[in-house]
Amino acid sequence: MGSAASNFLSSSAAKNEPQIKMHKFSHLKYLPLMLFQLLLMVLFFIFVRYDGDKHHDLRGFEGTHVMIFVGFGFLMTFLKKYSYSALGFNWFLAAIVIQWAFLCQNFYHLKDNKILATKETLLEADIMAATVLITFGALLGLASGLQLLFIAIVEVAIACANFYLVGDILKAADVGGSIAIHTFGAYFGLGTSWAMKPHHKKTSTAPTATSAAVDLNGPTYISDVTAMIGSLFLWIYWPSFNSALTTTNSEYQRAVINTYLALASATVTTFVMSSVVSKHHGKLDMVHIQNSTLAGGVAVGSVCNMHIMPGGAVAIGIGAGLLSVLGYRFLTPLLTKWGIRDTCGVNNLHGMPGIYSGLLSVLFAALATSDEYGSDLGAVFGAMGGDGSRTATSQALYQLYATLATIVIATIGGAFTGLFAKLSFLSPLKDNEHYDDDVNWELP
Amino acid sequence: MGSAASNFLSSSAAKNEPQIKMHKFSHLKYLPLMLFQLLLMVLFFIFVRYDGDKHHDLRGFEGTHVMIFVGFGFLMTFLKKYSYSALGFNWFLAAIVIQWAFLCQNFYHLKDNKILATKETLLEADIMAATVLITFGALLGLASGLQLLFIAIVEVAIACANFYLVGDILKAADVGGSIAIHTFGAYFGLGTSWAMKPHHKKTSTAPTATSAAVDLNGPTYISDVTAMIGSLFLWIYWPSFNSALTTTNSEYQRAVINTYLALASATVTTFVMSSVVSKHHGKLDMVHIQNSTLAGGVAVGSVCNMHIMPGGAVAIGIGAGLLSVLGYRFLTPLLTKWGIRDTCGVNNLHGMPGIYSGLLSVLFAALATSDEYGSDLGAVFGAMGGDGSRTATSQALYQLYATLATIVIATIGGAFTGLFAKLSFLSPLKDNEHYDDDVNWELP
Amino acid sequence: MGSAASNFLSSSAAKNEPQIKMHKFSHLKYLPLMLFQLLLMVLFFIFVRYDGDKHHDLRGFEGTHVMIFVGFGFLMTFLKKYSYSALGFNWFLAAIVIQWAFLCQNFYHLKDNKILATKETLLEADIMAATVLITFGALLGLASGLQLLFIAIVEVAIACANFYLVGDILKAADVGGSIAIHTFGAYFGLGTSWAMKPHHKKTSTAPTATSAAVDLNGPTYISDVTAMIGSLFLWIYWPSFNSALTTTNSEYQRAVINTYLALASATVTTFVMSSVVSKHHGKLDMVHIQNSTLAGGVAVGSVCNMHIMPGGAVAIGIGAGLLSVLGYRFLTPLLTKWGIRDTCGVNNLHGMPGIYSGLLSVLFAALATSDEYGSDLGAVFGAMGGDGSRTATSQALYQLYATLATIVIATIGGAFTGLFAKLSFLSPLKDNEHYDDDVNWELP
Repeated sequence: MGSAASNFLSSSAAKNEPQIKMHKFSHLKYLPLMLFQLLLMVLFFIFVRYDGDKHHDLRGFEGTHVMIFVGFGFLMTFLKKYSYSALGFNWFLAAIVIQWAFLCQNFYHLKDNKILATKETLLEADIMAATVLITFGALLGLASGLQLLFIAIVEVAIACANFYLVGDILKAADVGGSIAIHTFGAYFGLGTSWAMKPHHKKTSTAPTATSAAVDLNGPTYISDVTAMIGSLFLWIYWPSFNSALTTTNSEYQRAVINTYLALASATVTTFVMSSVVSKHHGKLDMVHIQNSTLAGGVAVGSVCNMHIMPGGAVAIGIGAGLLSVLGYRFLTPLLTKWGIRDTCGVNNLHGMPGIYSGLLSVLFAALATSDEYGSDLGAVFGAMGGDGSRTATSQALYQLYATLATIVIATIGGAFTGLFAKLSFLSPLKDNEHYDDDVNWELP
Repeated sequence: MGSAASNFLSSSAAKNEPQIKMHKFSHLKYLPLMLFQLLLMVLFFIFVRYDGDKHHDLRGFEGTHVMIFVGFGFLMTFLKKYSYSALGFNWFLAAIVIQWAFLCQNFYHLKDNKILATKETLLEADIMAATVLITFGALLGLASGLQLLFIAIVEVAIACANFYLVGDILKAADVGGSIAIHTFGAYFGLGTSWAMKPHHKKTSTAPTATSAAVDLNGPTYISDVTAMIGSLFLWIYWPSFNSALTTTNSEYQRAVINTYLALASATVTTFVMSSVVSKHHGKLDMVHIQNSTLAGGVAVGSVCNMHIMPGGAVAIGIGAGLLSVLGYRFLTPLLTKWGIRDTCGVNNLHGMPGIYSGLLSVLFAALATSDEYGSDLGAVFGAMGGDGSRTATSQALYQLYATLATIVIATIGGAFTGLFAKLSFLSPLKDNEHYDDDVNWELP
Repeated sequence: MGSAASNFLSSSAAKNEPQIKMHKFSHLKYLPLMLFQLLLMVLFFIFVRYDGDKHHDLRGFEGTHVMIFVGFGFLMTFLKKYSYSALGFNWFLAAIVIQWAFLCQNFYHLKDNKILATKETLLEADIMAATVLITFGALLGLASGLQLLFIAIVEVAIACANFYLVGDILKAADVGGSIAIHTFGAYFGLGTSWAMKPHHKKTSTAPTATSAAVDLNGPTYISDVTAMIGSLFLWIYWPSFNSALTTTNSEYQRAVINTYLALASATVTTFVMSSVVSKHHGKLDMVHIQNSTLAGGVAVGSVCNMHIMPGGAVAIGIGAGLLSVLGYRFLTPLLTKWGIRDTCGVNNLHGMPGIYSGLLSVLFAALATSDEYGSDLGAVFGAMGGDGSRTATSQALYQLYATLATIVIATIGGAFTGLFAKLSFLSPLKDNEHYDDDVNWELP
């Protein structure tokens, strides 16, 4: 690693010389973020207050925190020379997003023009950070720091509006956020990636660029190991994530059990399928192992607190593993050919499994009866369970609307955001700066 | 790392050519596991139901989850070219075992022919996964993926029967599982390893093989660092593990305190002893530091909820550190010479400290009085405390029976399982495929 | 990494030959620690008892445990050839300190000449371990194992006395330990470092030494990645750490919210400032990212349970990020020139942010009113809230005394301890043995 990294360093120091001249004020490039941070501070002073001694023992806060900062951060260290950026920008983005999302989410729920801060509202901000980090996964190595920060700030505003639409207006059930968080983050990312794709005419220069630089869009032995830190912690705390916003004990217990089982069966399916679709004699592919194993947690997300039966959770996980591995093997190469780059394959881990979860929520909402759910019915489906409330069929339709609306809003929102992100004041990367820590970091 | 790994890759690509021809259908090799996963799904549909709103705030679930997937997984990454397999097979095995063990364990406790799923029964399945992963530690780098999966499935069935024997029939106290989990997993692994040992006649080829291949049975600088991730997380959450199944507050608190203290004193002892037995001027050996530090948690496991006094916990940890370092230094080389390979030295971390804990449980059961335990007596020793219940002496004998029965069942069960695991349809490894990720993984 | 490490190994094996002759009994060098461990065991037998079924559901124990062993341990792996020592000595020191600090702290609170062990008193011992590990950060790579252990044992005795002075005598509010833990540990470390500085006359030999050895006081690409494991886990569980010793729900909730927000804003500020003060075109510096991001947690520590407002927490974090990055960039090089080496820059992460927190506690104590705090006043400020109790102004003065006393006691205590630590029986390191795992470890 050491010698390889220093080779990269010297070679890229050479190739970046033209860039250096362009950026006379490059050490001030993040100053607008400081102004945004100061603006956040002022908004916190104006709007945010403590909420007395309100406290129910919140399960899942610490685990979700681990997922956001260690889970997403390390999962994205798999590239050979982008580990600093993966960890660093993951942290930078999440740190700004948890403040900004806290405000955006709670502007919809002001009390006397004030936001009451609790451990629970912090947790919701953490969860919203996942949306941005999923989008970051699609763009990994392809966007500059300023582009990522611009995208994150815009995305949070749109995602919080969509979150409000899904949860408060459509009153769709989505306890694990597979619709409003995973699907949104993935298709926002794909939309952005599509809009930001380079428009090459002169293909003659491309070979020269690649021959000069080592191909950085791939792992090393050790970067795949550090990525497993992220993958495993995401997997471990996924039951905490999916169950974090449940309110009753039985709902909580179902969410934990179903997520645990769906993850387990998705993992087994991923290993088997990775071998089945292998190009070399059944050898396992780390990309599948790091990612598709987690698809079970996404797929069960929207329905994990419903009465899907433990066997149903296992079945959902099997489907998720299949869908995700096949997506990595066959769909991602196609999308790349069409100009939609998706470095981490978020479409296979968050996008398609998210839609799958949305469709499952249509099914299980349609099947919901008050006999089965008892007093839990209103806890799981906010608009059911009371007098004059929705029928199961009606709720099923709203689940569908929520899923479709999320896909549309995310994709279009992402595409427009991507168009603006191409503006030169956000210093977009040149082709030979992709996947390269040297652009942003002092390297040893 | 990068260049070293790619050297391995090219050299082993050459040496594996004969293998490639043999495995025309090698990409279908894990399909039987998919069938097993589908069978598990069907069994879940038939037998498993939610348990209403039963929920006591379970301490230790998340921590145990971290130990199984991150702890065991990363601890085994210490080999220079087996980190993918360590992490991958650890995950694959655990994902299938937590489902299978959930069923096996609860078949002994059916209610109206149904298994009621709770966070607690999931936790017990997690704990049972440790047994299989300990066995994996003995066989690390020596068994093929199919062999490991075959062994895991058989082992869980036997281990759950033994667990029932220890806990429900003999009613032995074993709250941290040092008898039924650690001792069982270690001796099952040693039995398997013994049965699977190669029977070489033609020693003339051996030098050729080793001269062609780099010796892979050892660490690199960075693989020893990633192994420490596993070691430290195991250590940190061991008090959660040992106390997870306690029922009363005082029992819980004793279990946490005693495990914490035994781990601390075992760690200090390990560092000192590693220097004392060093071959080079008192230098510390990472093998000891990664493993023997944890022996305190095993040694105190069966007795951690008993009245052993905090000083007693410190003393037990000192003994465990001594026993484990001496085992690594002097006993493991002997066992290897006798043909019982034990890659991670599980005999020194789980085996002997497990027996030590079993014998301590004999002692402390013999000393137990209702004066000292009060209302806790029946919580700690299930068969004591009521009318006409066991005497302390009688309980001590049952603790001894449980320990001995576990050693015998595990060793014999492991040996027979190992004999079957040698059958060629499980594609056993050739000597030059040992400790080598290239057999199972697409490498960068 | 592999080849680089083995180069180091061979070169340093050569240079250490003289040392080898000197240490005939070097494998017995840690035996005094074994005697100390046995003494601890005896003291535990004499003084420590279980505390019946006392148990309030302690929040923060497991998270603090992760911070001490994984957080501090991995944060210090950033040096290219000192990762084993960072992880190993962090563990060794913490394992002995949690036992020793448990006794030292509770000797001030004996009941009937007995110490009652609870999960809470264990947690306090964990927290005290942080003090020693902060000091270790200043000395990283500069002190021998024996020196570190000697310093740790002396430091705990002094730090526990200071802790008693701050909390019980001066009754200063310091719930997150920014005064008694962070400030103390940092200035004790700087005092020790100053006292242990080498007194070179013959500068002619220095170039030779450095030309022979690679400069080990710096990171590799991968060692900076493993350091991020530590940094992120410290960040994640800091709200648990700061809130662990709160007693009321509203105090707990404020501590979590304020720490979370201060960390987030300090992180954003750190990224921006790292780019602003960069030497190369705005490139980010991993040293800042790994450390200054955490300064928000220190800065808010002493006041996190007070009514500082969420906006105030954001503001405090911004100040901490500024202070810390500027410290790393401009102050540390100066201190090094003056002979006060500080390998991890603990002055910038723990020292100055700790004093900053102490001064903030003066301010917020002065502003405290019973109207605002209600029944919480006595929980936050132990000496206020009852009849005839302290005024806010008086409490503010005591906060100042506590901060000043801590700085003085720590610096002087550290300096004297450093003087004794130079004695030859603690085998101080030669210049060419600095930052080098080869001195202490069998390397692969």
